[in-house]
Formats: sequence, structure tokens, C-alpha cells
Amino acid sequence: MQGQINLNADMGESFGKWKIGNDAELIRIIRSANVACGFHAGDATVMTETVRLALENGASIGAHPGFNDIWGFGRRQIQMNARDLEYMITYQIGALQAIANAAGAKVSHVKPHGALNNMAHHDATIAEAVARGIRAADRELIFVANACSEMVKAGHQLGLKVAEEAYVDRTYSDTGLMTSRSLPGAMITDPAQAARQVLSFIEEQAIITPSGKRIHSAIRSFCTHGDEPTAVAVASHVRKELERNGIAVLPLTEMRF
Amino acid sequence: MQGQINLNADMGESFGKWKIGNDAELIRIIRSANVACGFHAGDATVMTETVRLALENGASIGAHPGFNDIWGFGRRQIQMNARDLEYMITYQIGALQAIANAAGAKVSHVKPHGALNNMAHHDATIAEAVARGIRAADRELIFVANACSEMVKAGHQLGLKVAEEAYVDRTYSDTGLMTSRSLPGAMITDPAQAARQVLSFIEEQAIITPSGKRIHSAIRSFCTHGDEPTAVAVASHVRKELERNGIAVLPLTEMRF
Amino acid sequence: MQGQINLNADMGESFGKWKIGNDAELIRIIRSANVACGFHAGDATVMTETVRLALENGASIGAHPGFNDIWGFGRRQIQMNARDLEYMITYQIGALQAIANAAGAKVSHVKPHGALNNMAHHDATIAEAVARGIRAADRELIFVANACSEMVKAGHQLGLKVAEEAYVDRTYSDTGLMTSRSLPGAMITDPAQAARQVLSFIEEQAIITPSGKRIHSAIRSFCTHGDEPTAVAVASHVRKELERNGIAVLPLTEMRF
Amino acid sequence: MQGQINLNADMGESFGKWKIGNDAELIRIIRSANVACGFHAGDATVMTETVRLALENGASIGAHPGFNDIWGFGRRQIQMNARDLEYMITYQIGALQAIANAAGAKVSHVKPHGALNNMAHHDATIAEAVARGIRAADRELIFVANACSEMVKAGHQLGLKVAEEAYVDRTYSDTGLMTSRSLPGAMITDPAQAARQVLSFIEEQAIITPSGKRIHSAIRSFCTHGDEPTAVAVASHVRKELERNGIAVLPLTEMRF
Repeated sequence: MQGQINLNADMGESFGKWKIGNDAELIRIIRSANVACGFHAGDATVMTETVRLALENGASIGAHPGFNDIWGFGRRQIQMNARDLEYMITYQIGALQAIANAAGAKVSHVKPHGALNNMAHHDATIAEAVARGIRAADRELIFVANACSEMVKAGHQLGLKVAEEAYVDRTYSDTGLMTSRSLPGAMITDPAQAARQVLSFIEEQAIITPSGKRIHSAIRSFCTHGDEPTAVAVASHVRKELERNGIAVLPLTEMRF
Repeated sequence: MQGQINLNADMGESFGKWKIGNDAELIRIIRSANVACGFHAGDATVMTETVRLALENGASIGAHPGFNDIWGFGRRQIQMNARDLEYMITYQIGALQAIANAAGAKVSHVKPHGALNNMAHHDATIAEAVARGIRAADRELIFVANACSEMVKAGHQLGLKVAEEAYVDRTYSDTGLMTSRSLPGAMITDPAQAARQVLSFIEEQAIITPSGKRIHSAIRSFCTHGDEPTAVAVASHVRKELERNGIAVLPLTEMRF
Repeated sequence: MQGQINLNADMGESFGKWKIGNDAELIRIIRSANVACGFHAGDATVMTETVRLALENGASIGAHPGFNDIWGFGRRQIQMNARDLEYMITYQIGALQAIANAAGAKVSHVKPHGALNNMAHHDATIAEAVARGIRAADRELIFVANACSEMVKAGHQLGLKVAEEAYVDRTYSDTGLMTSRSLPGAMITDPAQAARQVLSFIEEQAIITPSGKRIHSAIRSFCTHGDEPTAVAVASHVRKELERNGIAVLPLTEMRF
Repeated sequence: MQGQINLNADMGESFGKWKIGNDAELIRIIRSANVACGFHAGDATVMTETVRLALENGASIGAHPGFNDIWGFGRRQIQMNARDLEYMITYQIGALQAIANAAGAKVSHVKPHGALNNMAHHDATIAEAVARGIRAADRELIFVANACSEMVKAGHQLGLKVAEEAYVDRTYSDTGLMTSRSLPGAMITDPAQAARQVLSFIEEQAIITPSGKRIHSAIRSFCTHGDEPTAVAVASHVRKELERNGIAVLPLTEMRF
């Protein structure tokens, strides 16, 4: 097997006095950091620290915009009109762009967070509003979008570079969505199982479900969830196996689009 | 008399469902708009609309960052550490930069809002944090700073362009500060009195107080408060008198620094 | 015709520096005030002023809890789990209870706001969470609930007093819901039409739609929207016509349950 | 030595997804819980859980109101007018009263949080606003107030029961204030030193500083900070030593006032 792949993770999800996540360890394994932008988590200080951490570790930097819902951590679906949503996305990206600029860095990708990501998966109107909000901030931004989602289509339509994404540590249902966390087998906590999933998805260029179904899609990036206790062990093993199989694990900024 | 001067006003201070201010009329008189950035007022949608309004009317666009205090409208002093403050300023500027970019416009100045502006007037640590926050976002930004304040010094120290500012519609005390709103004679609601103040400040290059004291300072910009019922009449007359006296009323982007 | 009816309106929807609504006039017409509790609108100071206004005008006082969404004014649907929702309702009621207590008044009813009210209309889980949140604060509270909604059922199930509610200034569709504001004829701005609707709903004890459909329900309270320019004229005429027809217009606290 | 004393601690300072503190262990040692009310920390769900935890462990329940500043954790001084502050205090107490009522419990004391507590220590206007806000919610509430502070005076003036408070784990300067955390020796992390301080303060009915200065004051309650890693060990040893010395460690509700 050969080729290239990106590993990303959500980072900078502390807020004010509250600390969360395992950024200092994960950043050494993944190659692109999705930085929370202060609406569902993160604040200007956490964002600054996270950008510096990414920079020091050679990870590329992305905005991770979410609903304006600190209390709900961006995990509650909120019905917004498309116009408000588009502008809200641009706002959050811009905030991170300036903070990155202050650190001598650059925002190179965007990935929506939580409930917004879930809603934009299926809903073309929401996916397009997100894509417009990204393009408005900078048309060179890479849109990290769930494989097989409306976001992929919307990104391509608007001429954005799209990095189709799958998850390292989640199984998929036959609909092409991640298995709901409330169902057994949703989470992959075994490093070997995670590595097998990642390698098979890359080899077959498909989401493969436990039932054996293949849903074909280019996959350019794998996301690892930072909030599981097994996250570091899983991500670390996945990266090792990728490299052992001759696949370059790159920041999004070094990938071909 | 000859020369050039800028007129600015705070704008975009609506929030969600709540509307405030008289932006549509004021924008035709002033030449630079200070746009609230979502922390004390404004939101991504209001910011977008305000940027478009400024663009249509040939006004230059500035960020108007304030404390994160929607309830207090940024008018309550909040003790922040300098580092958090610096990053918070950069964050707000960046948010507006991206929204301006989306509209084909550019943020060219920054003016702090309300209690933050008052604190930065006297306090060098706060003034420097604000100036660092501005420079971090873009070192070409013009810092609109109260004449005779610590902000002017901090801006110059960091190599920023500084537009020293006085008010059209407020008298000054012998300390060089605006007379407190709680004292009689603080507000100037008579258009003729406002115009006389503006012209004498420019001619003498000084803040002149009711007692006759002169506090010398370059003055490049006059601010008009949008929230007084007399605002439009006062600003309109001031602009007319400036032009009648051969003084060009320019956007900050067209001024010499 | 004889009997008794309540008129209610949403009040106290200003927030910090932003003012909204026409409370001072409406309070003289309606008999029960639904006071926003700081989550979608209102703040402790506005709540205090609104409670005093209601007290001075002999209107009974109710809590008007909404989603924690100042920006969206509580009009955006937010997916909450039932437990969080229940506690959030109790929290908001409690805040108003203490503020009412400070003014020598008492909270006697609860009506959910905006998107929460719409969601609870159809969704039994949400309606029950709201009802539990009300009962937890005080089991004597009257639940003002859309006629024919899941809220009516949930309130009765939990042993709450329920005041079935219809609107003075909105037409209804054949599903028993208000006609969507986006459709023509949704709003009733003609005082005479509003009065006819109110009187016919009371006489027939039914929601009557423009097509002539009757959906039978007790109706104990009519709500008038404060945010329409015609609100005062409509409400005032409705009250006059009710009284001319021998129907007592009472605060909820004086009604039979 | 004989008599009675209360031990209290701040609790329920998690927020949404973010967890903090060691409530489950501390609650077994202290006898009164100061529950954050959603403005600087805590939310309706955390408040509910904290009230239940207190109830199960026989601790009395108090409100711990703070500035509306989630980001700053209520530790940033905010200049509020006295009227807004008073109503904001009542609001927060009321929210907790209803949540306590839902659990079959009762709010019996109030202690201000963080920067608000520090400001009210010295500033009579702020102390009185806090005291009025407490009395407005329920005049039987016990005001837990720093020994020798303006809060003690304000509480007595308004006829509130006042529990004068000192800290288990902080030394005091000769001004009667806690030594600033930025100075060496401010924190007491040695359980034996903490117990000696507590016992000597009780015996001498005075704040005793490292220099030997005595500032006389009744002391009815000692607070232990939950956020130090040594908190549980220190509090646990203090309680043991109190009881070994024949001093009853009681909830505030069982103390004489």
C-alpha cells in the first residue's frame, strides 16, 4: 500500500477556568488540529495556546466552528437560518485567523463541530451555508467534511478543496453514518481494530461497515476523538501502522488536492 | 483654515432581535464606522449588514472591540489580565476582518469600546495590551485613540498609526477627559456649539475645556455618539461647518499618517 | 354570553441596554403578565421592573421560561435532553419567584416561550419535562398551555391547574396550530376580527379555523402578542367586546380551575 | 475548649460538559455547601445534582452567587451598579431555592463568590446591595460573610443572621484580609498547620496573622477551598481536630445565631 493520509483531532476545547482534553499528547501524533473558536468551547487565550502548540508540533491549523452554545458544548442541534449560520461560520474562522496570524501561523482548514457537523451531513441547505461561510473567509481553505455527506457536495460546488474524512475510533452503520454512541460497538477502543479499519478504508477507498457494506468515497483524513481515555493509544497505534504500511501521514497543507 | 479631519461613529450595536441606533442616517455623515464585534453588542449578522452599509456609503471600516459583556453593553469595567485582553482584542478584530473580507471590504482601524476605552485611557498596561492585540491582527491597522491618553503612547511605541480622537458632542474637563455624563454640561446637543468646539480644537490643535484650558494634541478624528436623539443633527452640522471652512472630511484610509 | 376569561401577554423582553415592547400600555389591558426570565430575554433588573408594573396594574404574574439563547431570542429550536430541560424550567421559575417575593408579589402561572412552546405543543416528552419543571418549583402554579397541545395533557397528568390558551391575533390552521407567520392571513391586525375570533372561540369552546373547522377545547386564556404595532389597539378592543358581552376578564389568580 | 463551628465549601462549580472539583469527597467532611448558581459556574443540572449530594450527606445548602461571567469564573472584578447587583443576587438565590425545593431541600445560607466577595469585603455599598438581595429572597437566610468585613456590618444592619467566616487553608495579613495568593505562605497545605490556625482562631475569637496580630471577631464558619489538591486531607484533619477538642462541627442550620 502507498499514498498519503491526514490525521486530525479536535483541540482547544477548554474554556476559561475549565480544562479538558489531552492536547499536549495528541498533538504529537496527529498532523492537523481543529481548534475550537469560542462559540461551543475555547476562548481567545485557549485558542492562542492551541495555535502555538500546533505550530511547535508541526501540525496544520484549522478552525472548528460550532453553534453558539457553551453550555451545550455545541452538541445540541439548534435551528438557525442559513444566513445567520453562514456569517457565524465566517466570524469564527476570522477570529482564529487573526489569532493564528499573531502567532505567525495560518488557518488552512475548517471542520464543523458536533451537532452542526451532524446536521450539515444530511442537510444540503446547512452544508451550503457552512461552505459559503468558509469560502467567504478565505477561498483557499480546505473543507474537512464527512465522507459521503452533503458537505462534500457543497464544498465541491463552491470550488473549495475538500478533505473527505472518516473516523479512527468509530464504526459506521450501513447508512454511511457513524454508529450512534448509544449503540453497542459504536466506539473502537482497541488500537488494533482501529488500525485495521483505517487501513481497509484507505485500501478500498470506502467506508466499510461491520455488516461488510462498502460505501465508496475518497478518504483524505481520519479524525481521532480526543475525549476518550484510549484516544492516545489508539491514535498512536494507527499512525504507526499507517507508516509501517508505507502511507505518509501528512498535515493537510502538504496533501495533494 | 485648511487640512483634513475624520468623523467616526460607533455602529452595529444591535444584537439578535434587539435593534438600536440610527446607523442608516449617521453613515451618510461620518466617514469611518466603528463596528461592534459581538462581545458587548453586534453579532455576525449585524456585523455583515453594518459592513455593507459602510461600504455602500464610502465609509472606512473599523473594529470596535469591547469586554465580553452583552448584558452590560461593555460599559462595566472588568478587571482582565493583560494577556487575556490582548488575545480578546485580536479575536474580535479577526472576526470582523473575515466578515469584511466576505463583503469585499477591509478593516482599517480599531477603536476600543466603552469601559475598555475608559480604562485604557489612563492605564498603560491596558493600553499596551490593546495595542499589542491590534498589531497582532494586522500591523497596518490605525489605532483610533483618545487624544492625550495612554493609548496614544502605546500605539506609537508599537509603531502603529495613531489617529488621535476627540468628541463632537462632549465637553472636556481640565484633566483632559470628557466631562462625566452625570455632570451638567457634559453633553453638547446644540449643533452650533458642537461645530465651534470641533473647529477650535482643530485650529488650536488642542482639547479646550470650558474653563479655557488648552491641552495640546494632534487631533485626526472626531467621534459622534449615535445614541443621542440629536446625534444626526449635530454631526450633520459639524460636517457642513468643517467643509465650509475648507477642511476635508475624509475616511481614515485617506488620511496622512 | 357569560363567564370568565383571562388575557395574557409576554412582557419584560428588554435586555440590558436594549429596550423592546410596549409593556406600559399593554399591562393596562391584559390581566396576566408572562415575564421573561433571563434565558431568552429579560434580566434581573428588567424582571424586577416588570413585576412591579404588573403589581401596580393588578395583573397576575407568570414565569415565561425559554431556551438559554439570548441571541436567538428563544425562537430557535434547541434539542435538549428532558432532564436538563426540566431543571432549566425550575431554575427560571425560581429566579422569578424570588424577584417577585422581593416586590411583595407571587408567581402564579407559567407559560413556555417561543420555540420551546412550539416544541412542547407536539412532543409529549418535552411537554412532560416542562410540566415536571413547573410542578417542582410549586405545585400550585397554573400551566398556561396551548389548547389541544401535549402540554395540556402533561399538565393534567401531573395534577397541575391548566389554563388552555388561544391567541387573540393569530388565525389557526386545520391542524389546530396557529397559521405559520410566513403564510398570508396568519396575523390578525384588525381589532374587530380579533374580537369576533375571541368571542366565537369562547362561545363554541373550540378553536375555529378559517375553513370552518372546530377543534373542541376549553379556553381559559387568550394571549396577545406585544410586538405587533397593532397590539394595543387589538387587545384593547378585544377586552372591551368581552366585557360588553358580559364576560369577566380576570387575572388567572381569580379564575376557577 | 468547647462550642460549635461550621465547615463550608464551594461546590457545584462544573458547567455543561466541563467537570471540576472534588465534591463527592469534600461533602463528607464539610457541613454546609455553597452551591454555584449558574452565573460564574454551575448550571441547572449541576445545581440539582449538588443539592442532592448535599442532602444525602446531611450538609445544609447555600447559594453561592457570583458575577455573570462564566469565562472569568466570577474572579474578575466587574463594576455593577448597586441596584443591578441586588436584583442579580436575588435572582440567583431564587433559582437555587426552586431547585432545592424540587429535591425536597431548602436554601438556608448565602455566600458571595470570588471577585464579588472580595469587593463586598471592603465596599459598604456593594456589601449592602448583596445583603438587600439576600433579604429580598428570604429574610431567614444566613449571610456567610468574611469576618471583619463590610458584609458583616451590612448583614447585621438589615437584621440578617450573619455567620462570620474565616478560611481553613489561607493565612491572613495584618489588614485582616487573606494573604494574596501571589505571596509566599498564602496557602496552607499542611493539615496540622490548618488545624492549629482553626483552633487558635476559635479559642481567641480572632483572626491571627503570622506576625502575631489579633483582629477580634466572632467566627462561626470556616471555609475550605475545594480546588487545591490538598483540600480533602486538610479539611479532613481540621474536622478531626475540631471534634477531638470537643467542638461540634454543625451545619449552619443547627447553629445558634
